Amino acid sequence: MMKNIAVGQSGGPSAVINASLYGVIKTAFESEKIEKVYGLYHGIEGLIKGELVNLDYLRGNEEFERLKHTPGAFLGSCRFKLKETDLESIEAIFKNFDKYNIGYFFYIGGNDSMDTVGKLSRYAAEKGIDIKIMGVPKTVDNDLVLTDHTPGYGSAAKYIAASLREVILDSHAYNKPTITIVEMMGRHTGWLTAAAAFSLLDDNHDELMIYLPEVVFNMDKFIEDVKDRLKKVVSLTIAVSEGIRFENGRFVCEGEHEVERDSFGHAALSGCAQVLHHQLEKTIKAKYRTVELNVLQRSAGHFRSLMDFTESITAGEESVKHALSGETAKMVCFNREYDENGNYKIVTSLHDVSQICNKEKYFPLEWMTDDHFVTADFIKYAKPLISGEPEMIMKDGLPYYAKLKVKLESV
Amino acid sequence: MMKNIAVGQSGGPSAVINASLYGVIKTAFESEKIEKVYGLYHGIEGLIKGELVNLDYLRGNEEFERLKHTPGAFLGSCRFKLKETDLESIEAIFKNFDKYNIGYFFYIGGNDSMDTVGKLSRYAAEKGIDIKIMGVPKTVDNDLVLTDHTPGYGSAAKYIAASLREVILDSHAYNKPTITIVEMMGRHTGWLTAAAAFSLLDDNHDELMIYLPEVVFNMDKFIEDVKDRLKKVVSLTIAVSEGIRFENGRFVCEGEHEVERDSFGHAALSGCAQVLHHQLEKTIKAKYRTVELNVLQRSAGHFRSLMDFTESITAGEESVKHALSGETAKMVCFNREYDENGNYKIVTSLHDVSQICNKEKYFPLEWMTDDHFVTADFIKYAKPLISGEPEMIMKDGLPYYAKLKVKLESV
Repeated sequence: MMKNIAVGQSGGPSAVINASLYGVIKTAFESEKIEKVYGLYHGIEGLIKGELVNLDYLRGNEEFERLKHTPGAFLGSCRFKLKETDLESIEAIFKNFDKYNIGYFFYIGGNDSMDTVGKLSRYAAEKGIDIKIMGVPKTVDNDLVLTDHTPGYGSAAKYIAASLREVILDSHAYNKPTITIVEMMGRHTGWLTAAAAFSLLDDNHDELMIYLPEVVFNMDKFIEDVKDRLKKVVSLTIAVSEGIRFENGRFVCEGEHEVERDSFGHAALSGCAQVLHHQLEKTIKAKYRTVELNVLQRSAGHFRSLMDFTESITAGEESVKHALSGETAKMVCFNREYDENGNYKIVTSLHDVSQICNKEKYFPLEWMTDDHFVTADFIKYAKPLISGEPEMIMKDGLPYYAKLKVKLESV
Repeated sequence: MMKNIAVGQSGGPSAVINASLYGVIKTAFESEKIEKVYGLYHGIEGLIKGELVNLDYLRGNEEFERLKHTPGAFLGSCRFKLKETDLESIEAIFKNFDKYNIGYFFYIGGNDSMDTVGKLSRYAAEKGIDIKIMGVPKTVDNDLVLTDHTPGYGSAAKYIAASLREVILDSHAYNKPTITIVEMMGRHTGWLTAAAAFSLLDDNHDELMIYLPEVVFNMDKFIEDVKDRLKKVVSLTIAVSEGIRFENGRFVCEGEHEVERDSFGHAALSGCAQVLHHQLEKTIKAKYRTVELNVLQRSAGHFRSLMDFTESITAGEESVKHALSGETAKMVCFNREYDENGNYKIVTSLHDVSQICNKEKYFPLEWMTDDHFVTADFIKYAKPLISGEPEMIMKDGLPYYAKLKVKLESV
């Protein structure tokens, strides 16, 4: 008997999360084992409520080709922490799986989403329910373990590097001491901020200092280091992760603001650049600028990495192929190889989501230098990930993105 | 006798100010009347100090081709208000004109720069000094009078529209009331912020409200309007100029911060989005995000308008041609025409800088609607200006920009 599939998106959007969605849907459309493709309206929340969108209208539609280039979560996302004790939600989910004849479920997200995939898989196994449940990796933070990198990181890193290069060029305008503080996303890991290293146009990195959450932050040392650096350069740029912390574990940004927490207990951070600005200006006279890359860095569909885009589609495609061949409770991982000419390539493998969820891959401390830069190892690691640009679909001078036509199936 | 030319850049950089510089230099390189091309190191300040860079190294150099794609002020800029009474500076300038055998001087900038061009031209005329001095238009603010638009505006507008489109898509992620406040540059004019109108993917503009400095801002009315709008939409984006003011003339951003002033007495504004956020959250419960496009919007060389890029080069070229044919104290202006098929084209003309300097072209009030959007007239006006994308020179996945090799001529 033919089955249907359900696919959902979770957590923060990215510039390529819909490329993975495209990979899932396209492979499902092409499979003879699958009848209908349903999208969860706002992730697992929609699945609990029975809000599913029939995506068959995308079949052969030009909007389907635009979908793969569209940033943001096409289906809508959520931040819903599914608890193993929340049987009401879990039973509602499986009731809807049954009602919509779902044989395969794909959840695109980060380590919290893998936790959801794990819980639902275990429930299915315990109850003897035949459904294949797969996690599709996505996070600009690049913090999933057991995979060389994650879809979303390359594009965000590329956008950060290009934007910083431009901000630095702009900061050369005036012939007087200028300090530009640029804040990147990254609660616990510094992968995105490290991409700032690519912004430089030559080998001299005196103009750039990089601060990651993995390295304990000391305000006095920071101010002294900035003073020292300004003896060498007129224009200094400081790239800093939102999640840098003092030795006592307190976020630097907590210096001034109350910190909101989301439903996972994660602190909603911002304003770290402002805190550093206010501290520096007490003792260092300069022209100051603060730039928060904010959601721009994860949604910049107009400047994505071709490698990231291609790999994101692959992650979606491979997930469906493996599910169709019987795998469940797994996530597609990337393994890096270099061919005989030293060219980067990836091969994929599967890992249990239970080994991935609720863990974080930190930026290696040995890839940071004492003078607040990164080593050649990081450059070698990240360079292929930001390479190339996908051809875009443009209309009237702007990226022509797709927008979900919400037509919910009746519950 | 052959003469040399000097060219300088002034005020805030843009993504295409170097395209105009390229146009000037290229036309000078090709002229048999001109021997050497000098760049002013940091504008008129460098000219006073005699800091001139011999740009002959760019002749036939691949870096010259990269220069035209490079954002930021390649030669360095300044914000120096030349006073007519400051004879010491003016005499230093003319001494350097003489010393370097400058027969033609080109100053790329906005209305403050046109003021400088005017003052130097008048001095030359009074003293009977034979030098042609031309202003080359540049400002992302689009506020120069007597020209349909200015080089720099189209690219910044295009970047704003694309980025906002992406931010709006990102804001659809969560299925709960979301208010995103995006702040654009524009002290006195709302041209940049109005470009937010292009961000929408369909004709329904309920999700977007636009606030320009030309329209008096009322906080109570604003809060009521936002409340009303949230009855219609889940995700609301508010595009706001940094320079919006209350009826009494006070900047909205002054609500919270002391305002710095630059050497022209202009207030250095920022944080208006933050002020609105703090006011709204007192009465409206929603997920809030503030995004300041900041210097990103004027330096985004990775996403420029081909039309703007081409016209910026033209502005530089035409300025040199007119100077060589004897014109002085003029600025190249753009006049819009439509051909028989309704296609946009520009023809250029010259206007006295004295008619341009120290004036501002405001966004027409009749192009704003009561429901905080823009009319079709603005769309028709700006659409051609954001069209097309120049081919970029890329290296290792990033825009390969040029960097000035500073080698100052000895004074």
